[in-house]
Formats: sequence, structure tokens, C-alpha cells
Amino acid sequence: MSRALSVAIVGATGLVGRELIRLLLQRRFPIKSLRLLASSRSVGKKLLVGEQEIEVQEANHNSFTGADIAFFGATPEVSRNLVPAAARAGAVVIDDSPVWRTEPNVPIVVPEVNGDDLAEHRGVIAIPSSFITPIVLALWPIHRLNPVKRIIVDSYQAVSATGARAVAELTDQSRAVLDGNKAMPHIYPHQIAFNLLPEIEVFLDNGYTKEEWKMVQETRKIMHEPDLLVSATCVRVPVFVGHSAAVHAELSHPMTAEEIRDILREAPGITVQDEPTISLYPQPWTAAGHDTTFVGRLRQDLSHPNGFAMWVVSDNLRKGAALNSIQIAEELIARNLI
Amino acid sequence: MSRALSVAIVGATGLVGRELIRLLLQRRFPIKSLRLLASSRSVGKKLLVGEQEIEVQEANHNSFTGADIAFFGATPEVSRNLVPAAARAGAVVIDDSPVWRTEPNVPIVVPEVNGDDLAEHRGVIAIPSSFITPIVLALWPIHRLNPVKRIIVDSYQAVSATGARAVAELTDQSRAVLDGNKAMPHIYPHQIAFNLLPEIEVFLDNGYTKEEWKMVQETRKIMHEPDLLVSATCVRVPVFVGHSAAVHAELSHPMTAEEIRDILREAPGITVQDEPTISLYPQPWTAAGHDTTFVGRLRQDLSHPNGFAMWVVSDNLRKGAALNSIQIAEELIARNLI
Repeated sequence: MSRALSVAIVGATGLVGRELIRLLLQRRFPIKSLRLLASSRSVGKKLLVGEQEIEVQEANHNSFTGADIAFFGATPEVSRNLVPAAARAGAVVIDDSPVWRTEPNVPIVVPEVNGDDLAEHRGVIAIPSSFITPIVLALWPIHRLNPVKRIIVDSYQAVSATGARAVAELTDQSRAVLDGNKAMPHIYPHQIAFNLLPEIEVFLDNGYTKEEWKMVQETRKIMHEPDLLVSATCVRVPVFVGHSAAVHAELSHPMTAEEIRDILREAPGITVQDEPTISLYPQPWTAAGHDTTFVGRLRQDLSHPNGFAMWVVSDNLRKGAALNSIQIAEELIARNLI
Repeated sequence: MSRALSVAIVGATGLVGRELIRLLLQRRFPIKSLRLLASSRSVGKKLLVGEQEIEVQEANHNSFTGADIAFFGATPEVSRNLVPAAARAGAVVIDDSPVWRTEPNVPIVVPEVNGDDLAEHRGVIAIPSSFITPIVLALWPIHRLNPVKRIIVDSYQAVSATGARAVAELTDQSRAVLDGNKAMPHIYPHQIAFNLLPEIEVFLDNGYTKEEWKMVQETRKIMHEPDLLVSATCVRVPVFVGHSAAVHAELSHPMTAEEIRDILREAPGITVQDEPTISLYPQPWTAAGHDTTFVGRLRQDLSHPNGFAMWVVSDNLRKGAALNSIQIAEELIARNLI
């Protein structure tokens, strides 16, 4: 039995924070002590952790003394300000924000794909953007046998990735529209209820959004393929939980849908849901609350001799955020890296 | 002034039928007489056409005597049964169903693209599937200057394309979910509220759906490019009106986003909405009720030397169905083909 760890969660009252608490207990993570940290607004709130109530403390530069590990599931601003303090205090940081991902000494890790990169960490480990993790997870076992040359991804991303206020916005706007009233946007630039927004994060000069560009950068870094050709269109859809993606990949040589299905059936973290005749395929509504990444609609992409296409759906709060973070911590323990 | 025509509308009480009536009046189509046809269920209903009430009659084999033109906006079954009768009676049929599209003597027409094909009609003209029309419309002006070699399309399709009962289903299910109740599927195989379904029409043996395969067949036929490489993933989304698509195209030679924007700004039927800095891009909520096809998110697709990507949104009941049908009829008149 490994030693128990002092754990800190930054952003404990948020959607990802609550999922972290739930999953740490569910997976019997070896916790010696647990500190729940959040902005001053939430200080004094009490969260139920198992049968124990724990009071939320303010996250600041002095919050991390004695912590072995710190999970960050807060805003980029909080990660920018406090990750260095946590690392200086000696905690290994597992950060859910985009802030540190491009730093050369910060590995971006999906344990099933590049767990070996953990050996190079210098105190900060990033997880990928929540829509990228499941796609890389599904591509990796194929890539190892038949290298992927190019991928085109169009996403269908849920509002919970933006946080609890975005979930409330979709709820409120949906009610307003159904009641014949005007829906007012606050979190998103336009109405999201019964609508689609092809804008996730800021626009870059090349016409892509930052979210779309992350797909290029993070996929290359995780897969150690600096020349991989990647293009994405990222779209926010009126779905609460569960990111979906249509993926069109070009491999090094042709592969049948059955071969790919067989590879993915054996792959860790993946559940193949692919029985078209009974309308069985991944859906965000049914994927929500599950740890696994669902893959279906597997077929040869007939527009390219080595092409294949698939539909990937995963709970953005689980494998996209909290679960992947905890799996990294478990991997650090298993590899004696903490 | 051209002569006035005897017009029949089959499926007059449906979403497309009502849009046909509205647009025929709005565009001052030269109507001598108008017969509204529907299934026996709707017989006796009265629809307001301008200031006149017209009673709905049963659509059957004897409904078309004396009709010059018959717009079909009903189910595939109705088109299969009655289109031949209407054509035999001497009416030029403009059919919204997929039934006749693959027949060699039936042109599939988007007037701005292949209006010349109307000269070959033998009494039946098909319109493309509602999600294909706006995409072909946006690709065509680029294709003429810089031939398209391959396109990958992932769609985000509205429920109104399935009909009024699907609109009611999205409404009812959304209320149920917001009230914490279970949403029951009737029209679609699974819940559509706050969910996504990557299944539109039946599945084929090659793993594509019939809707996705139409994208291949219809695009090739309309553009007269039998070898064009095309792949699509078609997804139903919880949106009432307005089909959207992420399009990734490979051209014959490189073109900048600015060049493509300039071409599309001059193209008929297209409105470029592409000002990322002020979050201006096409959205189904704002495209609904408009005749034009909105194109934005124009950028070079950096995963291919000749690639470009765009986001196309259009009202599936207008340019996707009723408007395109009426534009075909107007073109027949202008070309003296009726």
C-alpha cells in the first residue's frame, strides 16, 4: 500500500472541483488530508466529502504548505497566479487550465497514451483541453499500428465545460425560448439555447480559434508527432454534459472498419458503441456520468484511400477533466514519481 | 409578363408546404389558380393564402388535372406514389423528396449552380437534400475558379427538416428535461433535447447513413463532377430551424481566406458573415427566416496546402426546401421551359 497523500483541490466548488471530490472518494484515492480551496466568494461554504463536512478555504499563495498534490480545476487566471506557488511549496500540480500546457517542461498527459512523459515533470503536469483527451485516446491505439498522418475534427461541445454559470444560462435561455420570451446572453456572446456557436475561446490571426489551435498543438505534443497535420472547427452546442466529435483521419495504409473496431475494443478507457442496425452509437446524454470514452460510427472514409471516420463522445467533466487528472495522480503513485 | 400558372402544392399543411405558400405570395409568383393538397387527415382544413381561405383537398392520382406545376413537400411515400401521376397529367413536378433524385432523367437543381440542367427535364425536377443545397451553393463559385478536389463535411441539422412532429418533440422533451422529467422519444430513436444523434436516415452497408451518402451522390450530380471526393458525418442537433455545416475543402491550388471571402461576397444567394473580432459568424437562430445562405469562419485549412475551411448556415425550410423549389419554377418560366 502506497503512503497516503495530502491533497489540495483548487476550484473545489466548481463543476470540475465537485467531480474531483466525487471521483477521489469513488476510486479510494489514498488521501491523508484534503483541503478544499476556492475564491474568497466561497470561503466558509461547507462541502460534503463522504460523511465529513469540509469547510472551503481561500486559495492563495500560502494555501499549499505541506500539500503533496494539488489539483487545479479553476479559471486560467487562478492557475496563472497560484500554480507556481503550489509547485514552490512542494506539491505536484495537476492543472486543468490551458496556461501551462505550452511550457516545454510541462507534460500534457493522457495516462493511457503518454504516461511515460510523467517521468519528465518538474512539478507541474497539464491535462489536455477536455474535447481533445477523448479524441487522442481513441486515435492512439490505431496510430501505434498504423500511423495517423492527418486528422480533421469538427466538435460539438457541451456548456458544462464553461462552468456552472453556463449550465444555468442554457437552462434559463431554454425556458425563456419555450415560453416565447427573448433569451439574454451573458456568458456566451450570443444565445446558446436551440442555437450553435462556432466560437470557443478567442480568435487568432490565422482564422482559427484558440480552442481549435489547441487541437493542433496539444495533439502533437501528447502523441510526440510534431508534424502531424490537424485541423478543427470547434462548435458550442446546447448540450449540458458530454463533448462529441466527428473525426476524419488519414492513416499510413488502409484499414477496414472491422480492424479498427477490434483495435478499439481492446483499448484502455474506450467503449465501442457501434451497432447501427439498432441505433446504437455514442450520444452525450447517455455518456454523461461515465468514465469511459464512447466511440462509434466507425467506417472507412471513402474520400481517401487510407481514410477512416468515427464519432467520439465523452463526459467532459470526467475523462475530459477530473478523471484524467486523478488518473495522472494514480500513475504518479504507481511509478513512484510522487 | 409571363402567363399565370395553375399551381398545386402537395403537403400543403406541413412545414415546407406552409413555407411554399408564404414564399409564392411574397415573391409574387404568377398564380392563376392554387390547389392545396394533403393527406386525407387534413382534408377540409382551411389555410389562409393572402386574404383568401383555401380548403385543403386530398392528394390522389386525380388531383393534378389541369395543373401546370406541382410542388411536392410531403413524405417520400407520397412522392413515390403521386409524382408520376402529376407528371402524366402534364404538370412539371418540383419534388422535395429523395425518391427521384437518382433517376438519370431527373435533374437535381440549385438554380444558381446548375440552372442549365433544367433544359433536360422530362417533367420531374428534384431539389437536393436540405443540408446539401447551401454547401453546394457556397462551394460552386470557388470551384469555378479553383476546382474542388475533396470535401469533408460534418453537419449540425435542425429538427424542422423532419417535420412539425419533430419540432413538437424537441419542444416537449426540452420542457420535460427542464422540469426534471424523463423525455420520451417518438419521432427520433433517442432523446433529441439537449442531446445529439449521429443518425439521419437509414444506415448503409458501408457504415455511412443514407443522408451522408446523398452528400456524395447529389453533390457530384449537381456539380457535374462524378469523381469528386466527398465524405460526411450527419448529426441531428437540438435546434428548431437552420442547418449548419463545418466544411473542409481541398482545392486545386492554394487560395487565401481573403480571396475566398471576395469570391463569396459576389456570389448569388450568399451572405458572408465573417467578423470574428466582433463575434459575427453564421448561427442557425439568426439564419432562420432568411432566404440567403450565410457563410463565415473562412480560413485556410492549415492541414492541407490547398485547404480551406468554412461554416455554412441556412434556413432548411427556405433555401433548403421551399425557396429552392420556387426559384426552380421561376427559372423554368424565365427560360421558357414551362
